[in-house]
Formats: sequence, structure tokens, C-alpha cells
Amino acid sequence: MSILVVGSVAYDNLETPAGRRERVLGGAATHFSTAASFFTTVHLIGVVGSDFEHAHMEFLKGRGINLSGLKVVPDGKTFHWSGHYLNDLNQAETLDTQLGVFATFDPELSEHHRERPYIFLANIHPELQLKVLAQIKHPKLVAMDTMNMWINTQRDTLQKVIEQVGMVFVNDGEARLLTGLKNVTQAARRIMEWGPKTVVIKRGEYGSLVYNGNRIFAAPAVPLLDVTDPTGAGDTFAGGFLGYLARAGKIDDSSIRRAAVCGSVMASFQVEDFGLDRLRDLTHGEIDERFHELTELTQFDHMPVFV
Amino acid sequence: MSILVVGSVAYDNLETPAGRRERVLGGAATHFSTAASFFTTVHLIGVVGSDFEHAHMEFLKGRGINLSGLKVVPDGKTFHWSGHYLNDLNQAETLDTQLGVFATFDPELSEHHRERPYIFLANIHPELQLKVLAQIKHPKLVAMDTMNMWINTQRDTLQKVIEQVGMVFVNDGEARLLTGLKNVTQAARRIMEWGPKTVVIKRGEYGSLVYNGNRIFAAPAVPLLDVTDPTGAGDTFAGGFLGYLARAGKIDDSSIRRAAVCGSVMASFQVEDFGLDRLRDLTHGEIDERFHELTELTQFDHMPVFV
Repeated sequence: MSILVVGSVAYDNLETPAGRRERVLGGAATHFSTAASFFTTVHLIGVVGSDFEHAHMEFLKGRGINLSGLKVVPDGKTFHWSGHYLNDLNQAETLDTQLGVFATFDPELSEHHRERPYIFLANIHPELQLKVLAQIKHPKLVAMDTMNMWINTQRDTLQKVIEQVGMVFVNDGEARLLTGLKNVTQAARRIMEWGPKTVVIKRGEYGSLVYNGNRIFAAPAVPLLDVTDPTGAGDTFAGGFLGYLARAGKIDDSSIRRAAVCGSVMASFQVEDFGLDRLRDLTHGEIDERFHELTELTQFDHMPVFV
Repeated sequence: MSILVVGSVAYDNLETPAGRRERVLGGAATHFSTAASFFTTVHLIGVVGSDFEHAHMEFLKGRGINLSGLKVVPDGKTFHWSGHYLNDLNQAETLDTQLGVFATFDPELSEHHRERPYIFLANIHPELQLKVLAQIKHPKLVAMDTMNMWINTQRDTLQKVIEQVGMVFVNDGEARLLTGLKNVTQAARRIMEWGPKTVVIKRGEYGSLVYNGNRIFAAPAVPLLDVTDPTGAGDTFAGGFLGYLARAGKIDDSSIRRAAVCGSVMASFQVEDFGLDRLRDLTHGEIDERFHELTELTQFDHMPVFV
């Protein structure tokens, strides 16, 4: 089954301990789509300026991503983010944000887009997320992401979005900020009380905790020897996660667990190089191999100790 | 098989978001021994003052802990630590340290103690750890812990200790400080180059990473709804870990994985109440039940995604 993602397509200027790069293809929807494209067809709803490079358009098309919803604004400038990670790879510091055409982004879905079964509302203004929710028809699953800025400035609107989705992706800091609860398990349960059946707490290098109904799954991250660029790791994780679910075509607990592992796998590749570079030549065989590494990483004999 | 632990026995004054407690039975060797005592016989080498309460002596004996190596110094004062966790349960802030009789601690092992097969050198001055190493005979496994203060002030001595042990327990910050490497996997591999076959990286609420030869195991922590007092969680983890290994009587990779899970289980109980209170009435049945919860938390279908 196919996925519709609504979110940013951007150029990033990046500085990490591994080096500097300029005008790297980025943005939440781009990272999400690329990761998910290994599993299923993705329809990307976004906006770019006329400065968006032909080669990047071709890269996304080459991944099988449907770009009929990617609007190109003549004479407009693509969203441009500059940031660095100098002391802590878990924490980006923003140096500059040029919204460009993204400032007037107003997602309009075609009839075909409205009927996609899996929807991902990437991190955009909650008003725009509501607009998308109003347009979609009988989705099988709607998942969303957000960020501190919207939690701090658009709480009521954000709350309305959360109440209408089935799955929320947040990092542990956002879960705490959103609920005022320090304990992440309490925070996840509170968010579930608002509506979502599934809350996915992203914890960076520590993996993720997936709260699904009464069950909890701890998905580990792959312990990597080198991390080159963590930008977009959360969106890549969500892309692998929903990509797997859409491919599986079911949303039972067992599929959700495998989905979280696929999210970890895709994120582990993505951070190995700048932007989307590591994913350019990635193969299904490599994904399966790392999936297997994660089984090795977590496996232990389940026999009780004392009985 | 039995374990010998050398380390502190203390009284703690604690303040956590859950409340305040004074003169709580604590200390690394106490926490370790109590946790390990659920799995095997433990011999505790330590020192206390004449203020050490009879009831606490009886509690430890009641757990089957051999106290023939616990020296009582007449007119001496037991090591006393005061600390609080106000904003972050992962980070204790020390308010006061009164070493008391611990300042002159000089571990001397009886012939029987010297021949114990499993040894845990809890966090004490590396010179004392070396002294213990010089006394023990043909151990099956020696494991150690340490802390930032010794890494900063006694690096050369600490290095000598590390070179002589088979297993090191450190938290991720200590592993980074010890090696100068920011990436924990790189740090663990560096420590292994110095001698230990196994490096256990403790990550608090995120569980632990166990580097054992070429294999890595990610042991999750139990996601708890409430944490009352994290003091001693690391020593309790080590106690469950080595307790299981000593009980199993073998140190293969499969046993080490189960040992790490037992460490997580014991730590998850310990933090539920102040000091050792939660462990007073803990049963083997409850340990097995939580062990099972951890299997549920980590289980997923291992079938490849694409093949």
C-alpha cells in the first residue's frame, strides 16, 4: 500500500565533526520519502523554489517517489536550513533558517492523494496538519511528527491534530514538554489518552520505545562506530517505520515491532554519510543484513531463571 | 559458585522528587551483595563503624551474605554520603561525603576469600583494587567498576587494574572520559584492547550495551512508571549480572546476555523504593516475572524483510 507524506523539502548547510557540506538535499519529507521508498510507493506533498536542482528531482523520481504533489514556485527559493553539531551529535544547533517558499506552503491534495491509505504528517505548522487531515478520506493510518516550537507556540492546535491521528512520533524531550510529565512512560500514556493508539518515543542513539495499546516494544539503535551526519535521522526512522507498515499492509503489534526495527535500520544507514548520500546505493540485501544484526543485538535465551 | 565483592558499605541521606530519607543503608558493596544474593552466595569485604546498626547487619545476614570480611571499627563512623536528584534522576548531586572508617579501608582477604571464583571490585581507590587483585587466586572472573574521580586523578593505577580484569562496568560518560573517544562503541573497543574481554556500558534508563569479544548485546531497561530512588542502581545492576553468571557457572556469550537482563531486572526493582527497601521482600517469582516482561519488551519476528 502507498504512503502520502506532507512536509518540508529543503537544502541544508551542515557542519558536523566529520566535516562541512553546503546545499545538501534535506527536509523532513525528503528524508522520510527516501527511506520509505525502499518499502513502498510514496507520494510527496511539498513545495520548492525554482532553485531546486534538476538532479535532485531526478534522484527522488529515481527512487520511485511520486512528485505530482511537489509544487515548484517560479522565482521562489527552496527552504534553506543551516546548522551544526559540534559537541553533541544528539543536538543540532540552528545557525540560520530561510523559509523561502515554505513560508506560504499550503498543502492541497488531489483526489488521488486524498485516498492514500497511509499518511505521514511530517513536522510542519499544526494548522497545515489540520488542513491535510480535513482533506484525506478513510485512511488506514495517519501518523504525525512535531517539534518543540509548535508545542510551545501552537499547543491548542497541535492538540487537535494529535486527537485525530493514530500514531505519534516524538523524541523523549518533546514528549515531556508536551505533557509536562518527566517520566517518558507516563508521558506516552498521557498522549495515548488524547487519542493515538500508538506513541513512538525516539531516543536517538538509544533507539526507541514504541507504546502500542497495552504493549511496549524497545527497539534498539544499531551501535555505530562512526556517525557522520545525524540530520534527518528521525524522519528516516519514521520513513522506515511507516514504509514497512505500508508494505506489510497491516498494523498489528507484530508488524509495528518489525516496523520499528526497520526504522532503526534505515536511520543507522542514513547517519553514516551526509544528507541522503548513504541511501543512494543502498540495497534491500544490506537492509536485511542490518535487520539481522539487530536480531543478534537483542537476542537472549528467554528461559526463566529460577523456575 | 560464590562471589567476593570488595567495596563500600555506607549510610546515605537522600533527596529525590519522591521524598527525603536519612541514614538509608547504602554503599556499592551493599547494593551489589543484596542484588547478587538472590542468585548465589556473596562474601562481602568492607568496613563499617560502631554506629552500624544491628538491624542492618541482620538484614545482610538474612540475605545469606557472608560478613566475615566486614570489619567493624570500634568508635569509628560508617561512610556517610548525602546527595540529591532534583532535576534529573540520571544525575546525583553530592551534598556531603564523610568517609569515616572508609578512609583507612585496607582490604585483607582470608584464605577462603582468596579462592572465591567470581570477584567484583566495586568502585574504590584503584590502589585498593590492585591490592585485592594481588591477593586472589585463580579466579574464574574478575569484574570491576570505577568512577570519574579515579579516572581523573588515578589514571595510571586504574589502567593497571583494567589490564588485569576480565570485565569492566562503566557508564557511557566514564567510558568516554577513560578513552577520550566520544563514540561509545569505539570507547568500548579501546578498553577491550587493554585486556578485558567484556565491557559493559551502563546507560541508566536506556539499559546497557554489553561488548563481549566480537559480539554486542543491547539489554533494555524496564520502562518504569515511577522511579523513587536511583541510588545504587548501577551496583544493583552489576549484582544481578554477576549473580546470574556465578549461578550459571559459565561465562559464554549466551550466559552473559541473560546476566545483563538479570542486571536490568534487579535494577528495575531497586529504583522503585528508597535504598534497598524494594529488595527486602522481593521473590524469585517476581524476578522471573520481570525477566519475562523484558522478553516481551524486546521480542520481534526475525524473518528478513525482503528475501
